[in-house]
Amino acid sequence: MPAQRPRGVSIQDVARAAGVSRQTVSNAINAPHKLRADTLERVTALIEEMGYRPDQSARSLRSGTRRVIAYTTPETDPDNPNALMSGFLEAMVAAAGEAGYRILLVRPRPGQSKARALEDVIAARTADAILLSDVLEDDPCVDYLHETGFPFAVFGRTRPGMPQAWVDVDSAQAMIDMVGLLTSHGHRRVAYLGTSAALPWLRHREAGFRIGMRRFGLVGHEAFVDGLDEVMAVTRDLLNRSPRPTALVLDDDWLAPGAYAAAQAEGLTVGVDLAVTGFNDMPYTRLLQPALTTVRLPLRRIADALVSRLLQSVEEGTPPEAGLLLAGDPVLRASMTTVA
Amino acid sequence: MPAQRPRGVSIQDVARAAGVSRQTVSNAINAPHKLRADTLERVTALIEEMGYRPDQSARSLRSGTRRVIAYTTPETDPDNPNALMSGFLEAMVAAAGEAGYRILLVRPRPGQSKARALEDVIAARTADAILLSDVLEDDPCVDYLHETGFPFAVFGRTRPGMPQAWVDVDSAQAMIDMVGLLTSHGHRRVAYLGTSAALPWLRHREAGFRIGMRRFGLVGHEAFVDGLDEVMAVTRDLLNRSPRPTALVLDDDWLAPGAYAAAQAEGLTVGVDLAVTGFNDMPYTRLLQPALTTVRLPLRRIADALVSRLLQSVEEGTPPEAGLLLAGDPVLRASMTTVA
Repeated sequence: MPAQRPRGVSIQDVARAAGVSRQTVSNAINAPHKLRADTLERVTALIEEMGYRPDQSARSLRSGTRRVIAYTTPETDPDNPNALMSGFLEAMVAAAGEAGYRILLVRPRPGQSKARALEDVIAARTADAILLSDVLEDDPCVDYLHETGFPFAVFGRTRPGMPQAWVDVDSAQAMIDMVGLLTSHGHRRVAYLGTSAALPWLRHREAGFRIGMRRFGLVGHEAFVDGLDEVMAVTRDLLNRSPRPTALVLDDDWLAPGAYAAAQAEGLTVGVDLAVTGFNDMPYTRLLQPALTTVRLPLRRIADALVSRLLQSVEEGTPPEAGLLLAGDPVLRASMTTVA
Repeated sequence: MPAQRPRGVSIQDVARAAGVSRQTVSNAINAPHKLRADTLERVTALIEEMGYRPDQSARSLRSGTRRVIAYTTPETDPDNPNALMSGFLEAMVAAAGEAGYRILLVRPRPGQSKARALEDVIAARTADAILLSDVLEDDPCVDYLHETGFPFAVFGRTRPGMPQAWVDVDSAQAMIDMVGLLTSHGHRRVAYLGTSAALPWLRHREAGFRIGMRRFGLVGHEAFVDGLDEVMAVTRDLLNRSPRPTALVLDDDWLAPGAYAAAQAEGLTVGVDLAVTGFNDMPYTRLLQPALTTVRLPLRRIADALVSRLLQSVEEGTPPEAGLLLAGDPVLRASMTTVA
């Protein structure tokens, strides 16, 4: 406990005890990603044991960095939070923490735009870099950050002409792979149930599905819904088209409970008469009966790549030159079927 | 967009346009909770429209506050995040935001204790106050913060002798109420399936169950599990005790899928032959078949109370004198049964 902590322990004392240089002790605190795991662990244990505490306040003033990444976390329902974005935040906290950075959550005031909230963050010098997610094609936050030159990175994508400081899952390829997985299970007639919303990641999935259908020579229809109350009727209609599909590809897990109910209403048993696949691997998909075959986003790899891009912008002053697409992980569960 | 923003808009300009005092404009930015909702909305809209931007950097230096609450968010699995704690964080971001504060997420470095991570936050002057959750009875973070006198508040409880800067759900009363709800549905034989872990909130629920059973004159057994692999066997054993229970009270929603499977293995249909109740209203409980009767934590009210306590400590220098217990909200779903 701090009360018993010996006073006046210097960085030199820790370096001597650990048999390393002062720079290595400094790195253990300020740039842990530069050290080997065993060195980091040994030096951190000694820092803790000896009670060494660097003057971070002075350091922040000196270096001009706060070691803070501001993140405009999307609003959600506290009683039913978006598990994907909660998981992404957790991955970011862990990845940033390992690089010696913390996440500051930024929410615009009522009536304030997100870009203005970011302007406040920059003006108040409360963060070294900004992380965005849920960006749209003409996102005003991206325009604003591009204009100011403030370091930032995006979970999602930025359009050509903007800084390409982004990391995203390769949704189109993941859908091509899902169609391939269905093909390898004998499916030839595959229907697509999508969400109408003009969100770029949904359109990438739709494009991937079409490429996959052509590439594997499959046939089937597509249908789109605007909201939950349409899922039952639209799915039933899709299941009754000719040729009758043996598999139903959903563009997002949220459609699964309604699609399961529609299949049941048509006298079909998911996982027996009909394969259903989703996207995102939301935790509840494991509890559906049968559990849903879906695509898991590599959240920790996405977060690591974002942190590395943010640090590059902050520490070297140059943003990354190209966006980075990471592969989704197909998760095969009992909602898959095999067609003879 | 900032590029078109007129330069040199002063606080006086906004005050004149809004027909309010400079102090009111200042409050809209720095202490929005002090304004009426309609005034706040009108002034914020004008601030936005006119492009007024206070020099927050100077303000922070002047007032000594950063308008940041540091929160030691618990570690979770990015692929399956704890929905309760994600929802609590969302409620905190919203509640703090309305008071003009932001949340900084603090995670100890590998090998570092949570108390040392807090010491770093205080030394670096990165936050005005600290929020803790998941505290245990002898939590070293509470000891440390008590010692330093730094403003803090706890979602959970602190022991007598420590600052009573806490807000929690009244878990014992919620369990008494759940036993009362079962009684009003005709149940007389009620079993309790609990989690062994020495977590204070689980012990409060257990105590509440016992008080409820005595108060309503019910009979039944209790059993406890250490992990998921025990749930099936222990639940089946509990369902076979004499007198055979008509209802099963779980101390946490996480037990529900296993308890449902155990009931099925015993030839019982949950929601028909057996009532099952949970605690926490995790989102997946709505997807169970049948949906689970449970207790919802009033996350937004908890967050509002915590923010109000944190601000009292920061702005007035005096911590609250007593902890605050808020009622849980019973959520009646199809897993309830009526006994004739």
